[in-house]
Amino acid sequence: MEKKIKIAIDAMGGENSPAKIISGIDISLKKNNENYFLLFGDKDILNKNISNNKLITSNSEIIDTKDVILDKESPLTAAKKGKESSMWKAIESLKNKKSDITLSAGNTGALLIISRLILSTIEGISRPALAALWPNNKNMSVVLDLGANIDCNEKNLIDFSSMGSALFKSLFTNSNPKVALLNVGLEEHKGNEIIKNTFSFLKKNNSSNFNFEGYIEGNNIMDGNIDVIVTDGFTGNIALKTAEGTANFISTNFKKSLNPLSLLLSYYSLNKLKKKVRP
Amino acid sequence: MEKKIKIAIDAMGGENSPAKIISGIDISLKKNNENYFLLFGDKDILNKNISNNKLITSNSEIIDTKDVILDKESPLTAAKKGKESSMWKAIESLKNKKSDITLSAGNTGALLIISRLILSTIEGISRPALAALWPNNKNMSVVLDLGANIDCNEKNLIDFSSMGSALFKSLFTNSNPKVALLNVGLEEHKGNEIIKNTFSFLKKNNSSNFNFEGYIEGNNIMDGNIDVIVTDGFTGNIALKTAEGTANFISTNFKKSLNPLSLLLSYYSLNKLKKKVRP
Repeated sequence: MEKKIKIAIDAMGGENSPAKIISGIDISLKKNNENYFLLFGDKDILNKNISNNKLITSNSEIIDTKDVILDKESPLTAAKKGKESSMWKAIESLKNKKSDITLSAGNTGALLIISRLILSTIEGISRPALAALWPNNKNMSVVLDLGANIDCNEKNLIDFSSMGSALFKSLFTNSNPKVALLNVGLEEHKGNEIIKNTFSFLKKNNSSNFNFEGYIEGNNIMDGNIDVIVTDGFTGNIALKTAEGTANFISTNFKKSLNPLSLLLSYYSLNKLKKKVRP
Repeated sequence: MEKKIKIAIDAMGGENSPAKIISGIDISLKKNNENYFLLFGDKDILNKNISNNKLITSNSEIIDTKDVILDKESPLTAAKKGKESSMWKAIESLKNKKSDITLSAGNTGALLIISRLILSTIEGISRPALAALWPNNKNMSVVLDLGANIDCNEKNLIDFSSMGSALFKSLFTNSNPKVALLNVGLEEHKGNEIIKNTFSFLKKNNSSNFNFEGYIEGNNIMDGNIDVIVTDGFTGNIALKTAEGTANFISTNFKKSLNPLSLLLSYYSLNKLKKKVRP
């Protein structure tokens, strides 16, 4: 057990917790036995949830916490009053080197603020960012920031380029991730002053951590030619949610048209076409 | 012919012009004979394109223009040098009251700047905006600005609310369009200072032209509950292009999986399911 990776989990955070958290751990342990879980949450509830799962009981321990940060709480209130919460204690275990990683599916704003309070940021980086893996035609891109920082200056965007590249390299084997700034056009004169200044800086100052590829437009995010897409939290949040809404709209409308008759018709016409194309 | 609506067309603007423009006019005239077209472009080329189409020749006239504004030209160069172009002359006809509407599929930036130069804006409105009809689950929403104004202040966003509502009302019969500001959350404290000030203003000052509904997030654009979605040109452009990229990504991946075998399998499983569900 000594060499196992210790993952601290806020077992109470988010909708349908702890049930969904426990299911997730079960899936993880079936695939990978190198992990050991520290479950932060109400001891009685958690014990009831894991008692009949030998895989989990033998690869985890429960740390009893009495408070829970709710989704509707403001991040500041949560940070002030949440010192006994499962989320706080899980993050604190990372600071105390009792865990290697901390995970939470709870209140994102609270997670960000409490993490910053307890863990602080790497020297030279003033603001943390929210990043996501965005699917593309080849693999996945890292996109950041997605809402932690509504207003960003040049330094923030330059920092996000380094932070996103570090995340990308830790997830995928790639010595030089391609980084681009999300903008309204590809030409150097496009965009607001902050993005133009960031472009000039990154173009002049070659980083050893990534290759700067200039600008990327919204319609090219999913092409898969850029590994790390950098944007301010306002734009990134709206881009992410618009993509989500578009995907839902298309899949909902597709399902509506997905009835056996239309499928059979599609099959016949495709088959006919195929016969025509054959020599 | 006196009562026909006179539509001035920049017949040379955009890719595949004038062929695509002529095809569009043909489709329009077959559906609706209340329109009369003023075709601005090279007389010889246009004559060759329409000579064998009696429907078009009897419902249009050609105004010979020798210059064309190309897509790659900068809007400012186009505005300076384009006074003899099909786009310029088509917009000028509106100013001279020789046409009721002007349409162009050409260089968007040039169209915006030349229109502003020749036509100016309505009194009290300082900046024009680019608007689009965005499909949703119920009908269509007007979304603006989509890239004409990278930086917007409170007045611009308030103006866009009125302009978008006027456009919506002229397209669809609706006495009170619902207007919302595109933001990263629904709560009043979310967003940047400009959007928060705009929210306060619109909340306090009820407009007789629209109902202000507060904020809307990117994932709800296509729900169809809001008629006019207001945003700055930077955010709007990235939202629009991200939606386009997401739609392309999904349809490309769907087509890949759309082969006769998988369709037939889907048909059989759906049919099986249907039989099970039947009493």
